[in-house]
Amino acid sequence: MTLPTHLLNTHLPLGDQRTGRFYGKDILSVSQFSRDDLEYIFGVAEAMRTMVAHIGTFDLLKGKILANLFYEPSTRTSSSFLAAMERLGGSVIPINEVRYSSVTKGESLTDTVRTLECYADVIVLRHPETGSAAIAANAARKPIINAGDGIGEHPTQALLDLFTIREELGSIDGLTVTMLGDLKYGRTVHSLAKLLALYRVKVNYVSPEILRMPPELVAQLRKRGLPQTEHTTLDAVLPETDVLYVTRVQKERFENMEEYESVKGSYIITAETMKRAKPNFVLMHPLPRVGEISPEVDDDPRAAYFRQMEYGLYVRMALLAMVLGKA
Amino acid sequence: MTLPTHLLNTHLPLGDQRTGRFYGKDILSVSQFSRDDLEYIFGVAEAMRTMVAHIGTFDLLKGKILANLFYEPSTRTSSSFLAAMERLGGSVIPINEVRYSSVTKGESLTDTVRTLECYADVIVLRHPETGSAAIAANAARKPIINAGDGIGEHPTQALLDLFTIREELGSIDGLTVTMLGDLKYGRTVHSLAKLLALYRVKVNYVSPEILRMPPELVAQLRKRGLPQTEHTTLDAVLPETDVLYVTRVQKERFENMEEYESVKGSYIITAETMKRAKPNFVLMHPLPRVGEISPEVDDDPRAAYFRQMEYGLYVRMALLAMVLGKA
Amino acid sequence: MTLPTHLLNTHLPLGDQRTGRFYGKDILSVSQFSRDDLEYIFGVAEAMRTMVAHIGTFDLLKGKILANLFYEPSTRTSSSFLAAMERLGGSVIPINEVRYSSVTKGESLTDTVRTLECYADVIVLRHPETGSAAIAANAARKPIINAGDGIGEHPTQALLDLFTIREELGSIDGLTVTMLGDLKYGRTVHSLAKLLALYRVKVNYVSPEILRMPPELVAQLRKRGLPQTEHTTLDAVLPETDVLYVTRVQKERFENMEEYESVKGSYIITAETMKRAKPNFVLMHPLPRVGEISPEVDDDPRAAYFRQMEYGLYVRMALLAMVLGKA
Repeated sequence: MTLPTHLLNTHLPLGDQRTGRFYGKDILSVSQFSRDDLEYIFGVAEAMRTMVAHIGTFDLLKGKILANLFYEPSTRTSSSFLAAMERLGGSVIPINEVRYSSVTKGESLTDTVRTLECYADVIVLRHPETGSAAIAANAARKPIINAGDGIGEHPTQALLDLFTIREELGSIDGLTVTMLGDLKYGRTVHSLAKLLALYRVKVNYVSPEILRMPPELVAQLRKRGLPQTEHTTLDAVLPETDVLYVTRVQKERFENMEEYESVKGSYIITAETMKRAKPNFVLMHPLPRVGEISPEVDDDPRAAYFRQMEYGLYVRMALLAMVLGKA
Repeated sequence: MTLPTHLLNTHLPLGDQRTGRFYGKDILSVSQFSRDDLEYIFGVAEAMRTMVAHIGTFDLLKGKILANLFYEPSTRTSSSFLAAMERLGGSVIPINEVRYSSVTKGESLTDTVRTLECYADVIVLRHPETGSAAIAANAARKPIINAGDGIGEHPTQALLDLFTIREELGSIDGLTVTMLGDLKYGRTVHSLAKLLALYRVKVNYVSPEILRMPPELVAQLRKRGLPQTEHTTLDAVLPETDVLYVTRVQKERFENMEEYESVKGSYIITAETMKRAKPNFVLMHPLPRVGEISPEVDDDPRAAYFRQMEYGLYVRMALLAMVLGKA
Repeated sequence: MTLPTHLLNTHLPLGDQRTGRFYGKDILSVSQFSRDDLEYIFGVAEAMRTMVAHIGTFDLLKGKILANLFYEPSTRTSSSFLAAMERLGGSVIPINEVRYSSVTKGESLTDTVRTLECYADVIVLRHPETGSAAIAANAARKPIINAGDGIGEHPTQALLDLFTIREELGSIDGLTVTMLGDLKYGRTVHSLAKLLALYRVKVNYVSPEILRMPPELVAQLRKRGLPQTEHTTLDAVLPETDVLYVTRVQKERFENMEEYESVKGSYIITAETMKRAKPNFVLMHPLPRVGEISPEVDDDPRAAYFRQMEYGLYVRMALLAMVLGKA
């Protein structure tokens, strides 16, 4: 085959600066970000939002390939990364069936990752074991984006949560954020709390006794000077709340079913709840929901959980562009 | 990130009229179409056929994203929509594993659809429950295309069946269409019959006694003035048949195995059947087949079932382009 | 719809010669290739390597669609073909769930293939039954590429193995190739041996007694005049070896666990093994590995197994371009 050298020009990357503070970097944990980093990411995400609103899709990552490596199923997250890559003009290798594939023949995560980076330019990894994203990143030359590793981290969820607050309310400093539900096991509220620690906000925790926010996290935010309060019902803090972040209270967490029955009603958001909330308040949920928010609330303009999904698209577009040096 | 405004021009949609009678509409049921609608759809499908014959693929839907949401597996239908979108230059989010994903965590269909429309421009939905496509369409702002909802509807199958007849025989009026096999439970023959009711055709039904066409459907066609006959064997009507539409007779439908054994041979198409059929007759089957048509028939030019698959591609390309305002 | 005829020009294939000796051909077996064919394929693969190094992705197959039909899971091979098609600007219909789809409703392989070729331009097939690729090729008008059919053939693996040797060591003639491990059941070593028979190489076989290279293959190479030796341990042949091709010795192959325990250590490559090997020696493995090569070896520049994966990308890009007439 004669080398079609004229092609060498057709794909010269658009504005190929290959720079930016996250070029070639891994996205592993919310702890890696400074406040300045967050502002940078959100600036890019906002540009993505504008571009999508105007033209839907554009070829910023044309010719780039994402390996979407999901060791456990997550339609929502994998679809979001897939759409993000496609809206940037890139391609995706979707791997959702690790169960049945070479990995179950006993191959190590690092071998799988080192193989996939032969084919792809960036790897998004979802894995059930805490710390697996860091292990993968250590083995790989190409950037790894952690899309959730067990009870460990899910940094892109936390980034999209914070971006949602910023887009919905204009800024983050000065707000009162109330977290509701299972604050003990909820990975999303832990990560969000860590990011909020970089801002000047008040944080309220509302949960059943047995599902309280872990003390070490509360201590971490206290050290940063954030006012925090803890409650078992929403009533007292609802009127002052700017952002209500709802998570699911799973029946299985309770040993005592009577206790579960007695508390569960307090953690369901209804039209009645909305009446007592601020007019410009924002209701969030990482989804999927299973009863925590009544569907009657969906049409309230303050219900932001579906917009939250959309903000996730922009944040993931931003991260992909950034680690590939195109933002 | 500085907004790369020069990109704003590169993706201005080709011939972006964003009009057409199906722009932004859902495709839920064959009942929604007038004869005029059908002619419009078939005109677009024919243009698609010409384009594919000449250039294979083209960028009419470049930048558009289809969420291909399959709650039950159907390689044939999902591949057909996927190929349709790719031949139009668009991208696809394939979701084939709903079993293992957030949906099985208990998320409602409407929440799933409202999430996916944050990422995609159009949603193709296959779901085991009758009426689910309408529920999804009600929740979604983006167009929903029903790719089969239980024993309910599978409108794109019926459209491709009718398009096949039109392309193979030039027109539909004046033909004699014979439906063979399981006419009681066969979703495809019900939908096809409803569409044929808009034309001037004669319809013959050939089935075992216990698998006759439902009386309400026969009544519906009678009201429209279509001549219809019912038979238990093909012999009498084969000579006059222009289109023979074969469906599978499933053993499981019979309580009495002797009855099954006594009839099953009558519903298998062989080279012998073809000898007694018209020279320009068309043999159709929705596929997959499991013995209803002998493979020896495949090379007969009147065997249209593989071409039928191909016509399905053009019809689905047409529908995608139409609901996205590009046809 | 008015036919957007200006589009007819936008997709005129780049350098659309539609020629080349493999245009429209199936890739079914290593036995179909002459030495001259191999040189031709490797020349194209090398051009692909250069293109990927310079620009990552290019639009040689823009508008072409690959159906990636996997009846059994193989993340590695399916991802490799998917990436190959995407790096050439083409699209993919990924079918990884044949278990749950129309095929399990009893559809024949030939019907599935004849359906898919209505949507796609080329089909890559992985199937558990020996000979299935030939059956598919016989039914299909479009090119079939065999991605492994049972214990039969896996020609693209053998091609990438040989391409790896050529790229790593410059040429193949004159080398000493040692195959280690399960030589009785290992499909990859059988196919590689058949290709090596076209060159002037020495081949050493190292395996447990019960897993020796099949006599008919040894005879085949002897007929071509290749010197061959057989051993149960690596020690004697390691110093002269240019290429060491390691495969897994599966515990399950042994009836006698004592025998397994006594041999298994001899078939594990460690840093110690590397010390006794030539300075420009090449260590290969088809992957996945499960203990046969110690991870401590990975950073040795002579460990070529991850580069081997990358060469597979170029070989598969070459084959796709060739059968579609674009190389």
